[in-house]
Amino acid sequence: MLRSHTCGELSAEQIGQKVTLSGWVQIARDFGGMTFIDLRDRYGITQLAFNEDVSAELCAEARKLGREWVIKIEGEVTERSNKNKKIATGDIEVIVSSIEILNESKVPPFTIEDVTDGGEDIRMKYRYLDIRRNVVKNSLILRSKLGKEIRNYLDGQGFIEVETPVLIKSTPEGARDFVVPSRMNEGQFYALPQSPQTFKQLLMVGGLDKYFQIVKCFRDEDLRADRQPEFTQIDCEMSFVEREDIIEVFEGLVKHLFKYEKGIDLGDFPLMPYSEALERYGNDKPDLRFGMELHNMGEAVSGAGFKVFDDAELVVGICAPGCAGYSRKQTDQLIDWVKRPQIGATGMIYLKVNEDGTLKSSVDKFYDADALAKWVNIFDAQPGDLILVLAGKESNTRKAMSELRLEMGNKLELRPKDKFECLWVVDFPLFDYDEEEDKYHAMHHPFTAPLADDAAMLKTDPKNVRANAYDMVINGVEVGGGSIRINKRDQQELMLELLDFSPEEAKAQFGFLMDAFGFGAPPHGGIAFGFDRLCALFGGSDSIRDYIAFPKNNSGRDVMIDAPSELDEEQLKELSLSVRK
Amino acid sequence: MLRSHTCGELSAEQIGQKVTLSGWVQIARDFGGMTFIDLRDRYGITQLAFNEDVSAELCAEARKLGREWVIKIEGEVTERSNKNKKIATGDIEVIVSSIEILNESKVPPFTIEDVTDGGEDIRMKYRYLDIRRNVVKNSLILRSKLGKEIRNYLDGQGFIEVETPVLIKSTPEGARDFVVPSRMNEGQFYALPQSPQTFKQLLMVGGLDKYFQIVKCFRDEDLRADRQPEFTQIDCEMSFVEREDIIEVFEGLVKHLFKYEKGIDLGDFPLMPYSEALERYGNDKPDLRFGMELHNMGEAVSGAGFKVFDDAELVVGICAPGCAGYSRKQTDQLIDWVKRPQIGATGMIYLKVNEDGTLKSSVDKFYDADALAKWVNIFDAQPGDLILVLAGKESNTRKAMSELRLEMGNKLELRPKDKFECLWVVDFPLFDYDEEEDKYHAMHHPFTAPLADDAAMLKTDPKNVRANAYDMVINGVEVGGGSIRINKRDQQELMLELLDFSPEEAKAQFGFLMDAFGFGAPPHGGIAFGFDRLCALFGGSDSIRDYIAFPKNNSGRDVMIDAPSELDEEQLKELSLSVRK
Repeated sequence: MLRSHTCGELSAEQIGQKVTLSGWVQIARDFGGMTFIDLRDRYGITQLAFNEDVSAELCAEARKLGREWVIKIEGEVTERSNKNKKIATGDIEVIVSSIEILNESKVPPFTIEDVTDGGEDIRMKYRYLDIRRNVVKNSLILRSKLGKEIRNYLDGQGFIEVETPVLIKSTPEGARDFVVPSRMNEGQFYALPQSPQTFKQLLMVGGLDKYFQIVKCFRDEDLRADRQPEFTQIDCEMSFVEREDIIEVFEGLVKHLFKYEKGIDLGDFPLMPYSEALERYGNDKPDLRFGMELHNMGEAVSGAGFKVFDDAELVVGICAPGCAGYSRKQTDQLIDWVKRPQIGATGMIYLKVNEDGTLKSSVDKFYDADALAKWVNIFDAQPGDLILVLAGKESNTRKAMSELRLEMGNKLELRPKDKFECLWVVDFPLFDYDEEEDKYHAMHHPFTAPLADDAAMLKTDPKNVRANAYDMVINGVEVGGGSIRINKRDQQELMLELLDFSPEEAKAQFGFLMDAFGFGAPPHGGIAFGFDRLCALFGGSDSIRDYIAFPKNNSGRDVMIDAPSELDEEQLKELSLSVRK
Repeated sequence: MLRSHTCGELSAEQIGQKVTLSGWVQIARDFGGMTFIDLRDRYGITQLAFNEDVSAELCAEARKLGREWVIKIEGEVTERSNKNKKIATGDIEVIVSSIEILNESKVPPFTIEDVTDGGEDIRMKYRYLDIRRNVVKNSLILRSKLGKEIRNYLDGQGFIEVETPVLIKSTPEGARDFVVPSRMNEGQFYALPQSPQTFKQLLMVGGLDKYFQIVKCFRDEDLRADRQPEFTQIDCEMSFVEREDIIEVFEGLVKHLFKYEKGIDLGDFPLMPYSEALERYGNDKPDLRFGMELHNMGEAVSGAGFKVFDDAELVVGICAPGCAGYSRKQTDQLIDWVKRPQIGATGMIYLKVNEDGTLKSSVDKFYDADALAKWVNIFDAQPGDLILVLAGKESNTRKAMSELRLEMGNKLELRPKDKFECLWVVDFPLFDYDEEEDKYHAMHHPFTAPLADDAAMLKTDPKNVRANAYDMVINGVEVGGGSIRINKRDQQELMLELLDFSPEEAKAQFGFLMDAFGFGAPPHGGIAFGFDRLCALFGGSDSIRDYIAFPKNNSGRDVMIDAPSELDEEQLKELSLSVRK
């Protein structure tokens, strides 16, 4: 070893000891006769001292060192006269007796500091330097710790980790697959898995009973901010279970992680039906850190001659506490905000419940004080509150109101990163009906079982069948989701038929799974968590990129290694492929 | 939960308890008034009893059940009159009070038994049924346990598990990459990693210090038996280390696994230089479970007028103890064996050291008793031994003799699966010289550092430069290998130059790594283990397939899901690709 200790472990205990340290020069400071160097490694920073009086030669060498040079030193631990309480090694310094330069460094393109002068692009290009920064390094360490604790917990519960294949079969359903041409099977392609869904179900058919895997998955989608073409799932499946069993085990997992990593005892997670989540919060992943619930105002506002409300499928509002004092400029800004294409509202109505009890709305000419008092009642609004109302097509309006609620939550600082509110959203619709195509899509995926009570309606009223599915939501983020699966061949066939698969398509794509269901498939169900997102949640960050060692940019490029790239004609030929111009 | 207990946990302790079990019908036996069912799950088998006198109805239902049907029963644990000591639950049986059929099963295409009537092909097609068999199930459980213990050990040593990307950049060096067309970057391709080599080195440049990952890797090679296009590596890297540090940590890992899984204390692993391994055992992964070392016989046999020996680059022999009694038929069979194309010898000479001390060789007309006595001396052969000799081109002959040694080891049962002999092979040549192409290839890979003593010879005598590389060999299997890496830009450039990279090629393919070396790359080195192979070694199996949940066949096909497969024209178009006919 080129060191006896790390740069994070020396303290007063080692005073007088001879030590060997290796690391990077964080900074060198020259004070006439003394030169000090902060030596950095993964574990911390240790101050090295060079005294002109003791060795002019060593001092001269120290002065040659630049930032990020890699050195190995020997020296003696001594007490520091000027202690630094901010770092773990702040009580000591090392009086250097010899120095060896292990590698030089050019001047880095950005500073290796917690607050750096490097923008995202340059830091991605030199990601290996970015990783030296505490924020990225600690994110990767956190990820490693969480992965380990997830495995410990699941192992303790009797789960087996099984690796499922990466080179699988392409299915045209759902998101786009990445594909891999097969040289040995000319003109044929593998696909990279979007999830190990069918394989984990086959492991249940195989009797493995409790499976998990922390596994890379792939999705060839146009990337939105903070989406990665490759991402990591905590993928789990159990046999002989019902919904409550899955909920118990995996609520337990998340509670364990919070306790282990943050020392937080989470209470039991409430279960909320999908329909209730939509009604109260406008979406299926409600942020329960704050209230400000949605209320349907249709009855209270209709018939007053205000066309916007009268013609709307939905009139819905929230009550922002203490915002009645908003200036015209502030309300105008909010109106502009909801009109942005990402939100998509056509306008916003508001009612100020003034401190003196008077009411002032933006639609006073349609609603008198009595009419507006009804609004106040709906929300039980208090003096000083501001009621914000949107109207229009039902689903768009609900979505816009949900966004506005979250935005007001941000403005009012009701969404602190160190508060965690968890719940299960359940009883999703099994299908998503696409009016344009007059077609059903699976809301989760085609393997989700209907609720037992609704199964009989599959043939008669599919639109209203609820799925035996569940999402775990923390602070408005869907961190995991899953379902009890179909395990009978006839029900799986019916499901694929409802999803417009011809019998031939069903057989070609999922024949192996339906065959498997013919050989004693046990009742089973599972869940998958987005590991990147879970890490970001634990780290208190909005960006998953910090938790991925080598992320790709929004065009799916790795700018550090410059991938993807073109292939030789030779390679293409071997694969029997040509690129269309 | 559809069970209160598993089928492996009930014992005399639970007698009198009401229990609920779920599982598969292994077998049903009918004895007039009594019906017995063996109910199986992941954990074991429990006998269920149905008494005609108690409930004719239940008995009738039980008789309808076929093999592999999935049922849930309730009943009471009772003492068995006829105890079965072979199974953990053999002291009890469950008197069934109610039965629910959870799923039916067709008759499986092969028996779900330890010894099955199913051939490899049919078992692969119905792998989910194969997994129900103990041999496969236990292999997957062993793999999961080993994975967990590897993580525990490395975590205890301060290693961080970091996921490196799967969608990377294609490099024409070495084995063929699998590639992935990028839809968003038209005409460009990602590659799947053959190993995370460059990324783990960049993590070292990033200061992460101790990295590991259990990770899927990919190689598009023509598959030999027991090679898989996707395989799993235990990939590790450390900074500020020398060879001895790596050896200490990872010898420790393997010792830990043997202790944990098998209760075996392995002694320290000897280090053997590559040249010595070649000389004594004929290959660089010697099986040390037995001796029968190779001896060079050139000097002792040349000049006797026997052209085969006189013209040979190498005459080499082994001494098979106690085989002097081999019949003519047996020696002829050995001669046929070495002449097989896989072994490639042109013939074999032998010398029997008879029990009475007389010598009888197959070349008596060239060598008299005195001459043959020299052979005996070389091997210190004892009465009853058989000396086997091959001659010809040096490298072929050595290889053939190594194979013959292993074959004789098998015949003499000197290679028991429950004995483990481990060593490190070190001091490999850095380069492999290809005479035909007049070109150097990297014996390990282009990032391996030369031994410090030999570094100066890189420019003058590359052929004789030894690598700072090491392989861990157990029972003749290379389970892991690695090296101290180059960490200086100029040495890496020289290395690539020696490997015939033009400066442009070097920059295009490894520019990012050489750039990284310019910013303070620490001394570092690492190792990678083949996890599939390691599992097979622990399981005492020659085949890695049992340790892979869903393996591919020798054409790289998954016959269960029928992948790879053709793509829609639509999909190809999106990828700007067409298939050459």
